[in-house]
Amino acid sequence: MADNPLAGRDLISITDLSRAEIVFLLDRADQLQSAIRRERQLGHLRGYLLATLFYEPSTRTRLSFEAAMLRLGGEVISVADARTASSAAKGESIADAARVVASYADVIVQRHPAVGSAREAADAVNVPVINAGDGSGEHPTQALLDLLTVRREKGRLDGLTVALAGDLKHGRTVHSLSRALAYWNNRLILVSPPSLAMGDEMVNELRTAGLQVDETDDLRQAIGQADVLYVTRIQKERFADPADYERLKDSYVVNRALLAGRPELTVMHPLPRVNEIATDTDDLANAAYFRQAENGLWARIALLTAVLDA
Amino acid sequence: MADNPLAGRDLISITDLSRAEIVFLLDRADQLQSAIRRERQLGHLRGYLLATLFYEPSTRTRLSFEAAMLRLGGEVISVADARTASSAAKGESIADAARVVASYADVIVQRHPAVGSAREAADAVNVPVINAGDGSGEHPTQALLDLLTVRREKGRLDGLTVALAGDLKHGRTVHSLSRALAYWNNRLILVSPPSLAMGDEMVNELRTAGLQVDETDDLRQAIGQADVLYVTRIQKERFADPADYERLKDSYVVNRALLAGRPELTVMHPLPRVNEIATDTDDLANAAYFRQAENGLWARIALLTAVLDA
Amino acid sequence: MADNPLAGRDLISITDLSRAEIVFLLDRADQLQSAIRRERQLGHLRGYLLATLFYEPSTRTRLSFEAAMLRLGGEVISVADARTASSAAKGESIADAARVVASYADVIVQRHPAVGSAREAADAVNVPVINAGDGSGEHPTQALLDLLTVRREKGRLDGLTVALAGDLKHGRTVHSLSRALAYWNNRLILVSPPSLAMGDEMVNELRTAGLQVDETDDLRQAIGQADVLYVTRIQKERFADPADYERLKDSYVVNRALLAGRPELTVMHPLPRVNEIATDTDDLANAAYFRQAENGLWARIALLTAVLDA
Repeated sequence: MADNPLAGRDLISITDLSRAEIVFLLDRADQLQSAIRRERQLGHLRGYLLATLFYEPSTRTRLSFEAAMLRLGGEVISVADARTASSAAKGESIADAARVVASYADVIVQRHPAVGSAREAADAVNVPVINAGDGSGEHPTQALLDLLTVRREKGRLDGLTVALAGDLKHGRTVHSLSRALAYWNNRLILVSPPSLAMGDEMVNELRTAGLQVDETDDLRQAIGQADVLYVTRIQKERFADPADYERLKDSYVVNRALLAGRPELTVMHPLPRVNEIATDTDDLANAAYFRQAENGLWARIALLTAVLDA
Repeated sequence: MADNPLAGRDLISITDLSRAEIVFLLDRADQLQSAIRRERQLGHLRGYLLATLFYEPSTRTRLSFEAAMLRLGGEVISVADARTASSAAKGESIADAARVVASYADVIVQRHPAVGSAREAADAVNVPVINAGDGSGEHPTQALLDLLTVRREKGRLDGLTVALAGDLKHGRTVHSLSRALAYWNNRLILVSPPSLAMGDEMVNELRTAGLQVDETDDLRQAIGQADVLYVTRIQKERFADPADYERLKDSYVVNRALLAGRPELTVMHPLPRVNEIATDTDDLANAAYFRQAENGLWARIALLTAVLDA
Repeated sequence: MADNPLAGRDLISITDLSRAEIVFLLDRADQLQSAIRRERQLGHLRGYLLATLFYEPSTRTRLSFEAAMLRLGGEVISVADARTASSAAKGESIADAARVVASYADVIVQRHPAVGSAREAADAVNVPVINAGDGSGEHPTQALLDLLTVRREKGRLDGLTVALAGDLKHGRTVHSLSRALAYWNNRLILVSPPSLAMGDEMVNELRTAGLQVDETDDLRQAIGQADVLYVTRIQKERFADPADYERLKDSYVVNRALLAGRPELTVMHPLPRVNEIATDTDDLANAAYFRQAENGLWARIALLTAVLDA
C-alpha cells in the first residue's frame, strides 16, 4: 500500500488529520472493502490486539471497531461498560487505566463521557489511542465515516451544499463533520430551532476555515437546495421549556413526502434514529443512513491498519 | 457433507424446520462433535463473524453460541446486555439495530423479551437471524438441543412417552419441545399444578398434530410411565396466591428417592435448576441434564454451519 | 519446554504451588515473554477455549487473562458481570454454572465474592479452574505476578526485606504474597494503622513458615530499611470511626519526597491506586507498579500454557 503517514499515531480529533491524510484513509477504506468482500477476512492485523475501553456503552461504535479488527485477522479484548468495572468505581484515573491496558494491547479505542479524556489516555501511553467519543468533544471516526459516505454517494468531497438539521448545538457529530468539510470548498446550511443553533464561535471558526455557512429554521427550503441532508436527533431533554419541544419537534421530521422530487438528495443520519426520519423513507435509493452505518466498518478498518502500520 | 437445505435460512421457531431438517441438524451435530473432540477446533467458519445481540442477559445460551462459533474457526462480536446499550436506551427499533449489526456480521443471534422480536429482526436484514428466545415466544435452539439429547439418550425420537413437569403454562421451552415431538409418534404426559397447566389451545394443537397427550398432577405416577422426564422450574411469582406456591412446590421436586427403580428414565432440565431437582440425583447415570447443556454446544455448531452453508 | 508439573491442575491458592512450581512458572513467563515480544502471538493454545466467569467485575484481571489467551493463539468466551446474568439471578449454584461452562470451554477463570467459591467450582468440573479472586480469600495469580515482579526488579526472591503498607487486615493480595515469600528466606515489615493490622493468626502462620516479621506504624522508617515497598489502598469504609481515617490516611501516602535517597527501593502496588501513591513518583526508575501490572500478562500466559499443558 501507499506510504503510510499515520503509523503509530493517535486519533483524538478529526483535525488531527490533514486533508491528504483523510483522503489516504478513504482510499484505503475502498481498497480494503473490496478485498474483504472477496475474502471475508484478511490477515493484515494477525497477532495484533485491540482493547475497546468504553466508559459508557455504545453498541454501534464498539461493535464496528471490533468487527473491523476481527475482519483484519486481529484479536479483541473489551470493556463494554467500564463505569461498572471495579477499577473506575474505585476511583482509578483515566491515565492509570490506559497505562495498564496498553501493556496488554497494541491499540486502544476509548469512549468516555468527559471532554479531553481521550487526550488524557493518549498522553499516558505509547500505543495508538483512538477517540471513540469524549462527551460533547469529538468523535473523529464518525466524521471519517461520514466523509466516506459523502464521497461514495456523491463521488466527491467538494463543491457540495450540505444541510445539517436538528440539534446543532450539542452534537459532536456535526461539529466534527463540519470541521472536516471545511478542508474542501463546500457550503453548509444549518437548520435548527434557535435554541439548538450552532454556537457563534463554531460558526465563525467554520467561516474562517473557508466554508460558506447559511442558517435557517426552514427544513423544506434547505432540502430544496442541498446535495446532502444530514439529520440529527432533537432530544426533549435539551429544551429548557418542554412546550418548545412539543411545538418544534415535528418541524424537523424528515419523511417521504418531504423528500418527494429530490431523488438526488443524499439523506444521512448518524443513527440511532428515533422518529426524526420516518421509516417510509428507508427504501428510497437516496436514503443513505444504513449504508453510512456500514461505512463505519470500512473507515475503522482503514484506520486500524494505518495506525498499526500493517 | 450432505446437501444443506438450511443455507441462508433464519431460525425463528422450531416449526420453521421440517422433520427432515431437524434430523439433518442432529446428524450433523453428531458428525461435528466427533471431529471437534478430535481436533478441538475446525475451520468451517473461518472468516465468518457472528453477532450475539442479547437484549436480556443469558449466560448459557450466549456462551454456547459463542463457543460454537469459535470452535468452528469463526469470530464473535457480542452485546451481552443490550438493554443498557445506548442505542436501545435511546429508543432505536429492533429492525434498525439489526440492520446496522447485519452490516458488520454474517449471522445474528438475538434474544429479546418481546414476542415476535426475532421475526422483526429477520425481516429487516439479509443475513441469517437465529432466535435465542423472544420472551414467552420461542427458543428453537433449546428445542433442538432437547431433541438431540432425547435421541442420544434413548436412541430414537419416536415411540416415546415424555413427561413434562412443572410450569407448562409459561415455559417457551416446553411449548417448542412439544411441537417438535409432534413430528414423530410420541405420547406426552403433562404434570403440573392446575394453575400452571398447559393451555387448552396448545394441548389441542399438539393433539391435532398427532401426539397423544395425557394430563395429571401426580409426578410419581408420571415417573412410573415415562421414558423421559423433562423438569422445569416452578416460580413463586407465577402464583396469584403465594399460599398455593407453598402448598404445591414440594410436589414437583425430583430427587433420588423418587427416581428409585427407574434407571431407564432419562431426566432432563433446561437449566438453570434451583431446587426442583435435588443434587442427590446428579450422579445417577440417567440424570442427563448436564449432558443436555453440553448438547447445546453441538446443536448450535450444527446450526451455524448449516445457515452459513460452510 | 521443561517437564510440566502443572498439567491439568487447578490454581485456587498460591499455596497449591510448591516453591519449585512457582519458579517453573516464573521461568516460563520469562521465556514466553521473549517469544511474544518477537512474534506478537504464539500458537501454543491454538484451538483451546478459555471461559472467564466474573461474578463481580474486574477489568484488569479479566482483560489480562483474555489477552494472555489470545496472545497464545487461543479463544475466549466471557461473562464480564455474572451477577446480572440470568442464571445467577435465578439462583443457580456456582457448581452448576461451572459444570455447564466446562462443557463449552477447556479452562475456567472465575472471580466470585464468596470465599471458597473457586474451590466449589473446581470440585464440580474436570477442566482446570483458576481462582481470579474469591472475596477476601485468595487471588493466587496476583501473588504470582508480584513474585515475578520482585524477581525481575531485584534479581532474586530471597534475602529481601519487603515492607507491606496500608490495609493488611482485609487485603487478600498481601496475604497471598506473604505466604509465597515465606517459601524463601525473607523479612517482612508490616506497616499499618493498628486497626488495619494483619491478624495475629496470619502473622503467626508466617513466622512459623520461617519469615522474620516486624510490625511498625512508621512508613518512613520502613522505607529506610526495605528492598521492596508494597503499597495497598486504605479504604475509608474499613474504619469504624471516620475520624480515624481522616487522621491516618496521610500517614500512608507514598510520594516522591518520601522516596528521596532510596533509588534502590522497588515500589509496588497491585493497582488500581487512588491517592496512596502520588503521581509524582510515576517516573522514578524504581516505581515498578506499571511494570507489575504488565507482569500480570506474562504470569497468566505462563500459567495458562502450564495447566493446559501446551
